[in-house]
Amino acid sequence: MIKKTHEERKPEKRIPVRPRRKQEQTKRHYPQQKTYKKTYSKVGAGKVRIIPIGGVEEIGRNMTVVEYGDDIVVIDAGLQFPEEETPGIDFIIPNTKYLEAKKDKIRGLIISHGHLDHVGAIPYLIDKLGNPTIYATKLTKAIILKRQEEFPHGPKLDVQEITSASRIRMGKSLSAKFFDITHTIPDAIGIIIETPLGNVIYPGDFKIEVDAKGKPENIEPYEKLGKEKNLVLLMESTNVEMPGFSMSEKTVQENLKRIFTATKGRIIVGTFSSQIERIIEMLKIAESLGRKVFIDGYSMKTNIEIAKELKLFVPKKDTLVPIDKIDDYPPEKILAICTGAQGEKNASMMRIANKKHKYIRIRPDDTIILSSSVIPGNEKSIQNLKDNLARQGARIIHNKTEDIHASGHAYSEELKMMIKMIKPRFFIPIHGHYFRLKTNADLAESIGIPKENIIAPMANGIIIETDGKTIQPTKETVPANYVMVDGLGVGDVQEVVLRDRQMLSQDGIFVMITVIDSQTGKVKNSPDIISRGFIYLRESQDILKQTRYLIRKTVEEATGKMHPVNIDYVKTLLRERIAKFLFQKTKRRPMVLPVIIEV
Amino acid sequence: MIKKTHEERKPEKRIPVRPRRKQEQTKRHYPQQKTYKKTYSKVGAGKVRIIPIGGVEEIGRNMTVVEYGDDIVVIDAGLQFPEEETPGIDFIIPNTKYLEAKKDKIRGLIISHGHLDHVGAIPYLIDKLGNPTIYATKLTKAIILKRQEEFPHGPKLDVQEITSASRIRMGKSLSAKFFDITHTIPDAIGIIIETPLGNVIYPGDFKIEVDAKGKPENIEPYEKLGKEKNLVLLMESTNVEMPGFSMSEKTVQENLKRIFTATKGRIIVGTFSSQIERIIEMLKIAESLGRKVFIDGYSMKTNIEIAKELKLFVPKKDTLVPIDKIDDYPPEKILAICTGAQGEKNASMMRIANKKHKYIRIRPDDTIILSSSVIPGNEKSIQNLKDNLARQGARIIHNKTEDIHASGHAYSEELKMMIKMIKPRFFIPIHGHYFRLKTNADLAESIGIPKENIIAPMANGIIIETDGKTIQPTKETVPANYVMVDGLGVGDVQEVVLRDRQMLSQDGIFVMITVIDSQTGKVKNSPDIISRGFIYLRESQDILKQTRYLIRKTVEEATGKMHPVNIDYVKTLLRERIAKFLFQKTKRRPMVLPVIIEV
Repeated sequence: MIKKTHEERKPEKRIPVRPRRKQEQTKRHYPQQKTYKKTYSKVGAGKVRIIPIGGVEEIGRNMTVVEYGDDIVVIDAGLQFPEEETPGIDFIIPNTKYLEAKKDKIRGLIISHGHLDHVGAIPYLIDKLGNPTIYATKLTKAIILKRQEEFPHGPKLDVQEITSASRIRMGKSLSAKFFDITHTIPDAIGIIIETPLGNVIYPGDFKIEVDAKGKPENIEPYEKLGKEKNLVLLMESTNVEMPGFSMSEKTVQENLKRIFTATKGRIIVGTFSSQIERIIEMLKIAESLGRKVFIDGYSMKTNIEIAKELKLFVPKKDTLVPIDKIDDYPPEKILAICTGAQGEKNASMMRIANKKHKYIRIRPDDTIILSSSVIPGNEKSIQNLKDNLARQGARIIHNKTEDIHASGHAYSEELKMMIKMIKPRFFIPIHGHYFRLKTNADLAESIGIPKENIIAPMANGIIIETDGKTIQPTKETVPANYVMVDGLGVGDVQEVVLRDRQMLSQDGIFVMITVIDSQTGKVKNSPDIISRGFIYLRESQDILKQTRYLIRKTVEEATGKMHPVNIDYVKTLLRERIAKFLFQKTKRRPMVLPVIIEV
Repeated sequence: MIKKTHEERKPEKRIPVRPRRKQEQTKRHYPQQKTYKKTYSKVGAGKVRIIPIGGVEEIGRNMTVVEYGDDIVVIDAGLQFPEEETPGIDFIIPNTKYLEAKKDKIRGLIISHGHLDHVGAIPYLIDKLGNPTIYATKLTKAIILKRQEEFPHGPKLDVQEITSASRIRMGKSLSAKFFDITHTIPDAIGIIIETPLGNVIYPGDFKIEVDAKGKPENIEPYEKLGKEKNLVLLMESTNVEMPGFSMSEKTVQENLKRIFTATKGRIIVGTFSSQIERIIEMLKIAESLGRKVFIDGYSMKTNIEIAKELKLFVPKKDTLVPIDKIDDYPPEKILAICTGAQGEKNASMMRIANKKHKYIRIRPDDTIILSSSVIPGNEKSIQNLKDNLARQGARIIHNKTEDIHASGHAYSEELKMMIKMIKPRFFIPIHGHYFRLKTNADLAESIGIPKENIIAPMANGIIIETDGKTIQPTKETVPANYVMVDGLGVGDVQEVVLRDRQMLSQDGIFVMITVIDSQTGKVKNSPDIISRGFIYLRESQDILKQTRYLIRKTVEEATGKMHPVNIDYVKTLLRERIAKFLFQKTKRRPMVLPVIIEV
């Protein structure tokens, strides 16, 4: 479920839910800008090397390396949204130092599907990889190219279109073939890297749909694949903690159809723009009911555009109507599909809720359908969204009241089914935090994969090697720390900058500027104080006055005995005294910065 | 579920999960420090006035006023934990301006139970209410007094102990009686304010336990109460969105017993210290299995202490053993009960996970039980907790894998049951955001309360009045905005301070200090730059150099034509130019603050 945000076509700004508490920090180590060595060991002779570069200590920034002899294949290049330890950061992407050092060996970057946690890092890192050929299916390719347009200074991408029937030679010893997979976006594929030791199989994100009788659907490719020599299965862990089977997307679509049919007034749906399959289905339902469809939100419009261009669906003439015409139609003829079901500021749904939408004002006979899950961390913004919509009298249907959202990621029974069908010799859980990976490893063991044939990666950047008989991590690791994108900077934000942002957000900053006479050490004029986020200065004249007095006293006591004046000493003294004084007065700890100017 | 945090005895520091995104803010208006008028209208003759002062736009800081003639009864005085819009804040408490203006009419403060969202604000506001008598049951009283010890400069509280059999005269026209209620803490009571127009009933937080046959338990008091003249029911809305019945606490206790019995090694349980009933039950199970119990965590120890003092349970001699003796016992004799199941930093469980606990190191044969829900916003810290524990090899049981946690708040069917038993004339949903209140109002209507007899408060501070025949909000409202506690300050943090903290957390601060010759307007020396949370200064010498150059140029161009120098003009110009320059260079927007010193 968490994954959903990453599946957005264009990252909407996300709204945090909890303020940082004083002095708090969850334990996480992400060494920044270490000087890594520039060379790495060669793969052991006759061995297949697999490196999860991203996606095994987090949900997001997926990237996996498969290497044999002189050939490297890279799978996926996703981004991750920022975390509590990374305030102000735009995205986090995989660290490609290892690949940069070996870029002449890269035979291609294969992308499993078009969601951001699989394609989102391409614009930031493709250059560093030597701009290798990207292999992607039709829709995935269109999404990659569309996104690249937002980076006008980026390189021209070489994207080769593939289908599940393709077979691509990847250097001397590797080749790739593919299989269809069910996810929430069309054209998702599983990837098979053929090595001399057998297949390395990467289904990517998937789920297994089950029909009304409980029979799994579209599993023939996996069963067929199960007959081959399958060396390693790299399998996602997103929903491994969920028992049973995930809800079928068909159930969701049937429920939406039922609700649409029973509704009289306007229908306004908020959902993830990445849910392209569901959006297409809603378009079809609307056509069958004679409703016009109004698409709103940048990412939603882009995705519909791409889907139309690729003829993933062919709408009737006049089905799609621009949003500014919405008032030309009677309520029972209207279906609006909008972004912002997570309460993202400025997204369509939030503008509607806040009465700031240019064309949509809620009426009491409107039905609003939030066809999405709650991404952890967004509870508060979704609460605000629902509150503000409800205040205006609309009926609100959400995924707690009706089955109108299904995850695109396999639950534990589906995962087991996949392992049983593929019958791999070795099993490596990926995509998820350690506890999920561990749970996935236990799952595989529970259905017969020997413990010694399972590797649950302890961290991004571990090197796993197999000779076909055994599998283990080597002692070497490759750089895999966070690479942060902040504005124009990629990888330049240091931990110290983030720590400062966290500190500043707690009790603010207190800068004091003191001008002293370099001859006498006396303070000239009254010290200047600049403070933000600490106390409300206008109502704190007393404390400011006392602080100025204390600054002057501290400085002059120190400089009085000093010839020449040791500015660093005075500053340290000043910082300590004033920080202590302010804490006594307020029990708050602003960042205290003394500036001394000698004239 | 969200409520659970508030139920902690001592507020553990909570860990936020999502960083604030640039420029973002969910819509919320909390006017700060408005000058409110000092007088308010009298209650209409023969009318009962009810004011939800806190708890109807949030979960937390519950406080409700009941007024008739010259008498006021205040119910509960809770705190709320900070939100994303309030970084660095410790707590949020109710605004008591209305009560301060009428404090001579306050006949008492009645507390429904000992959780923080009902008692937590007492130390901060009791003085302002004129230190009225507090009425509370035995355990609640003990919790209030224990907490007050943390405020040595606070007033001596006048707490009168009550039981569900008490009846208290509250002034000329009101009186209070009580009824037993089931919640997750012992000694919780429902409150009945008897008015000349009938009963105002406030069950507080409650759930209805259902036995194995589906028969509700302990509902006789409600059925009996249903025969009286019940004017208004004020009912909580926390879990109104949940269908059916909540899980029984007995189910949880049975599952814990089963797991404890089947476990061979040490058992380490993390749970909310506020779950006093469950903790007592675990102690009993441990005794029956011959395990010693090691309590760890400040709030957990305090609560056990209080429970022991009040003889809520009488442990066998030697059942409770200090944590530093844990290694003196074999694994199968050990049950540790710890705080920190939400991954709160420094809480017991997190110290164990991070290998910083003084006495507990995880071993592979340990079983860790997280008997708690995930409070929205804590997903990430709980993920870290589970990851770090799993890395050390322990078996982890949590509420997704086993039914080992139940909410203390009624689900929709329980809420319906309560309404049907009480049979109130009027219904006011409380405790929850607007959407929950609305859902609760709809629920009441669905079981026969006429729409015009239901008030779903639009906001804290609305005045609701009834003459016994009709009920409606008056046009007047009372101050109900957030009062924030930050360090020693109560209510002194302005919105501008919070906005600054949010801004600072995004792109940091950039202060430039320029000394100019007041005679010539020339810049003396190189401008000083102080920046935090923006870019890593050590690796940004180029940009600093260019900025210094631009500062000097801007200042001298401006002052060159000026006699005398208009400092404010120069500062504005400088702020604009430098902000623009830095944005061009980095696409980041630090807070830019120019300081000009004339010598």
